[in-house]
Amino acid sequence: MAIHDFEPDHYFVTIGWHEPALHIADGDTVRTKTLDALGNNQQGEKVGERGNPQTGPFYVEGAEPGDTLVVQIDSIVPNRVIGHTRNVLSENIVDPEYVRELPENEWIEWQVDYAAKTASWGQFTFPVDMMIGCFGVAPPRGEAISTATSYINGGNMDYRGFREGVTVYLPVSAPGALFFLGDCHAVQGDGEIIGTGIEISCDVQFTVQLQKGRTINTVRGENDTHIFAAGNARPLDQATQHATTEIMRWLQSDYGFDATDASVLLGMAVEYDIGNIYDPAYTMVCKMAKRWLP
Amino acid sequence: MAIHDFEPDHYFVTIGWHEPALHIADGDTVRTKTLDALGNNQQGEKVGERGNPQTGPFYVEGAEPGDTLVVQIDSIVPNRVIGHTRNVLSENIVDPEYVRELPENEWIEWQVDYAAKTASWGQFTFPVDMMIGCFGVAPPRGEAISTATSYINGGNMDYRGFREGVTVYLPVSAPGALFFLGDCHAVQGDGEIIGTGIEISCDVQFTVQLQKGRTINTVRGENDTHIFAAGNARPLDQATQHATTEIMRWLQSDYGFDATDASVLLGMAVEYDIGNIYDPAYTMVCKMAKRWLP
Amino acid sequence: MAIHDFEPDHYFVTIGWHEPALHIADGDTVRTKTLDALGNNQQGEKVGERGNPQTGPFYVEGAEPGDTLVVQIDSIVPNRVIGHTRNVLSENIVDPEYVRELPENEWIEWQVDYAAKTASWGQFTFPVDMMIGCFGVAPPRGEAISTATSYINGGNMDYRGFREGVTVYLPVSAPGALFFLGDCHAVQGDGEIIGTGIEISCDVQFTVQLQKGRTINTVRGENDTHIFAAGNARPLDQATQHATTEIMRWLQSDYGFDATDASVLLGMAVEYDIGNIYDPAYTMVCKMAKRWLP
Amino acid sequence: MAIHDFEPDHYFVTIGWHEPALHIADGDTVRTKTLDALGNNQQGEKVGERGNPQTGPFYVEGAEPGDTLVVQIDSIVPNRVIGHTRNVLSENIVDPEYVRELPENEWIEWQVDYAAKTASWGQFTFPVDMMIGCFGVAPPRGEAISTATSYINGGNMDYRGFREGVTVYLPVSAPGALFFLGDCHAVQGDGEIIGTGIEISCDVQFTVQLQKGRTINTVRGENDTHIFAAGNARPLDQATQHATTEIMRWLQSDYGFDATDASVLLGMAVEYDIGNIYDPAYTMVCKMAKRWLP
Repeated sequence: MAIHDFEPDHYFVTIGWHEPALHIADGDTVRTKTLDALGNNQQGEKVGERGNPQTGPFYVEGAEPGDTLVVQIDSIVPNRVIGHTRNVLSENIVDPEYVRELPENEWIEWQVDYAAKTASWGQFTFPVDMMIGCFGVAPPRGEAISTATSYINGGNMDYRGFREGVTVYLPVSAPGALFFLGDCHAVQGDGEIIGTGIEISCDVQFTVQLQKGRTINTVRGENDTHIFAAGNARPLDQATQHATTEIMRWLQSDYGFDATDASVLLGMAVEYDIGNIYDPAYTMVCKMAKRWLP
Repeated sequence: MAIHDFEPDHYFVTIGWHEPALHIADGDTVRTKTLDALGNNQQGEKVGERGNPQTGPFYVEGAEPGDTLVVQIDSIVPNRVIGHTRNVLSENIVDPEYVRELPENEWIEWQVDYAAKTASWGQFTFPVDMMIGCFGVAPPRGEAISTATSYINGGNMDYRGFREGVTVYLPVSAPGALFFLGDCHAVQGDGEIIGTGIEISCDVQFTVQLQKGRTINTVRGENDTHIFAAGNARPLDQATQHATTEIMRWLQSDYGFDATDASVLLGMAVEYDIGNIYDPAYTMVCKMAKRWLP
Repeated sequence: MAIHDFEPDHYFVTIGWHEPALHIADGDTVRTKTLDALGNNQQGEKVGERGNPQTGPFYVEGAEPGDTLVVQIDSIVPNRVIGHTRNVLSENIVDPEYVRELPENEWIEWQVDYAAKTASWGQFTFPVDMMIGCFGVAPPRGEAISTATSYINGGNMDYRGFREGVTVYLPVSAPGALFFLGDCHAVQGDGEIIGTGIEISCDVQFTVQLQKGRTINTVRGENDTHIFAAGNARPLDQATQHATTEIMRWLQSDYGFDATDASVLLGMAVEYDIGNIYDPAYTMVCKMAKRWLP
Repeated sequence: MAIHDFEPDHYFVTIGWHEPALHIADGDTVRTKTLDALGNNQQGEKVGERGNPQTGPFYVEGAEPGDTLVVQIDSIVPNRVIGHTRNVLSENIVDPEYVRELPENEWIEWQVDYAAKTASWGQFTFPVDMMIGCFGVAPPRGEAISTATSYINGGNMDYRGFREGVTVYLPVSAPGALFFLGDCHAVQGDGEIIGTGIEISCDVQFTVQLQKGRTINTVRGENDTHIFAAGNARPLDQATQHATTEIMRWLQSDYGFDATDASVLLGMAVEYDIGNIYDPAYTMVCKMAKRWLP
């Protein structure tokens, strides 16, 4: 259970079966850095390709297709004080005829004060709530999928719930799992509907564990209060189907519910959160509060 | 500002330009009863047609097309102790190939203890959280729309946020607005994904106000912490567009934001809730916390 | 088998359970007139409400819920020489970000020469191919549905295949079926993607038959070469599901195929046509060539 | 303008930036072989991975990002007499509740007689109409995209119109373009709604040309009667937006229409065909008849 300090020197704009940047073991912790979505580092220098360049991949010894990689997000700390967002709603988020009323979209610069936990621009000051927008493991079939979108292996989900303390479960398709991460946000509303959060470079620490022989179908997660599954697809209806089906499976396989009881529990207590509704694939998160689980 | 005690003797399964059941004035309060979704009353007798038969319509004196009807939901109290749900996920909520694994769907009976604020079936006991599933005003063009679905005038939105204390804004299309209500639920998860909440008959009290000459485009609402708009359409993507566009308009018309500032505010702080994802039209709710409003 | 010459003096912008305009019998033929989509008659006078005002309803003696109304479209002849279209693609038809590049939408006027079978505007001359954009029977549950959209009972489907010689099958929900028609087009591409065809008033002749006790689920049709079903919903994916399911049922109930053979036949020879992709509900048509049927 | 006889010895199940199998020049013709969708060759031996393993990639000398690769499909000839299909409609194609009525899906074997131009199974005999289901060039950003789906670079579009004699235009993103092809079908209905056409191995001949500096946004094509664009996305609505936007651009850039005239032309004469509605991304084809072009 080593701790690795890893300073990346190259980045990827696809999540795929790329040459490992570092080999780590089950139980290891990694402290590393992520660029912002535009490819800029701690010094504000553009050292990666836009958008959402990834640190990694981290090869987890022993991980094989069919396993599950467990990633605990230990900490996300911005390593500079400037972040950026767009300033106009994305065209796909509003009624088609309303697009004609949208002004031109521009980048704006935010002051991020991590100590005070605030981010400010113009009249607005919001509390900082650090999250990782894009991370995942190598997808099946040798695919290399753009970090502009997401799939069953993760990717650019932009879900506010991927924050410090969360545990993420990822379906392993490649030997070593090949874990990537990047694209942290200081603040973001549901859906990332202006096409960005406050994009900022960060110091990130995470810890991996391996669940040998445990197979899942899409990204799952867990925090203090909930278990959840993320469906990544378009339209949102299909993302919802993916997420709901995965929670339904989970409730039956791990919590002793039959299909009827799991259905009733979901019918009475399911909660949905929205990740990204900006990218080619949208993200819907289906949640169940732990208070209802045995 | 009279208080009307109205005992309905007939019900509607469309929301349309029907003969008024009661004339009321701006500022009046109505205490009335709603059947459950199956058409059963307080005594469990089937006196209305399935599904979601509506009490009303209430003709609000002075309401004209282009106005907004404000409805405050004062109280929702079940008037019997038995409620019903289905017990299997709806087929449209899961991956198409997973439908083959769903068991047959049946009705189950819940014990609802309003004093204790609990509803129980088998191993499950959930806290009662009363909501109105279906309500609205007459739609435009003389339409009469099935209470199985929803539209810009409201209808079967099945949103958990339509609970006691909420204020709803409805776009008036018919003289007198013609307000209908019914289909209360004792407990329901997001999305009504088993096709029902705990369906139960209720005593409901509401108070109306009229905003003359104020025109809105779809259902809006407000509670202690948030303003929100409900988009009703399929797919969920389009419901999201409707709701987001309406909040965008609201932020600009009433809160002094220009399009850019309203976009930034939404981008940083918007929240989405899901109403119904079971009916022909789905419901997406776009919310903004009042703490961010001037 | 009477022939009725019916001159309408009022029109409806919903298809619903309205007072019959004329009672007719099984086997009767009706010769009547339809306004254009804007409500203008043969003389170009605005006598109906926009959009798609309907002639009718025609009450077919003996028609009861659960029956099928068969309507043969005998002829559609424009009764004036001027028609109108919009001149810019609808915003919902193009990529959201491309909406910014669309010019303002205006009405343009076409010369329709029915004898020469041509319609002309500016540099363009197209062959006239008369069709009925909007027709149907009263929907279930007493609904009255806007002629801006469509449903299982028909409505504004805007399918080019609803032309002279086609036979249409409609599911009866109201006593007398209550058949409406209007909104003829002289020329229209697939999808009605500029939001209109060449809108023109017409003389229309149709003949009805009743299939007692035969129940269908959505609009069906038949011409010399194909049988088909129309699915009306959004998104297009759902319209496709409706249409495909209905053809699948039809192949099994009437043509002696089991589910496997019907699937194989569809897999090898199904054809799809697109009706309207502009309205709240889109229309997808699923077709099977008669040459493959027993 | 050489003619290359290329016998593949390995295959790819992603379309990506893979090591070229053969270098060819602008104007060259290639005669090669494709496996069937299951990975079986001319002898029925499984030599490739399922599904839709690709022959190639062919590196076209001089092709650079921003160019267009023109591929003429000269001939598609099955090289064996056995093909296979599934025998039940795919679950995503029918109404969700109808899935419960679908039987189990199995593979069936067809006799393909290329001389007689027929394919037969059980009671069915259909005319052979050879097509290529899956082909494309390397996608942007170094992506490697599964041959189970499609994107702006092509992929598994399963469009019946990709047959002998068609000319296809592909947007080049990688040096050398890297053209792949495979997955030929002897017969297939619109939409590939049983999840397969008649899958068969083939001898294929194609000829490439390079359009330097000409940039397109998604797959385009041309045959004797039409120009067309293919939009690949889900839902079908978005695929339709992609295809329509691309044709709209093409009409303006190459045929001298302004936005209004191009809109009117499309409004009056556009045609849509459906490719795949089975894969993660669906395919919609937007067509314009050449008879209407200057």
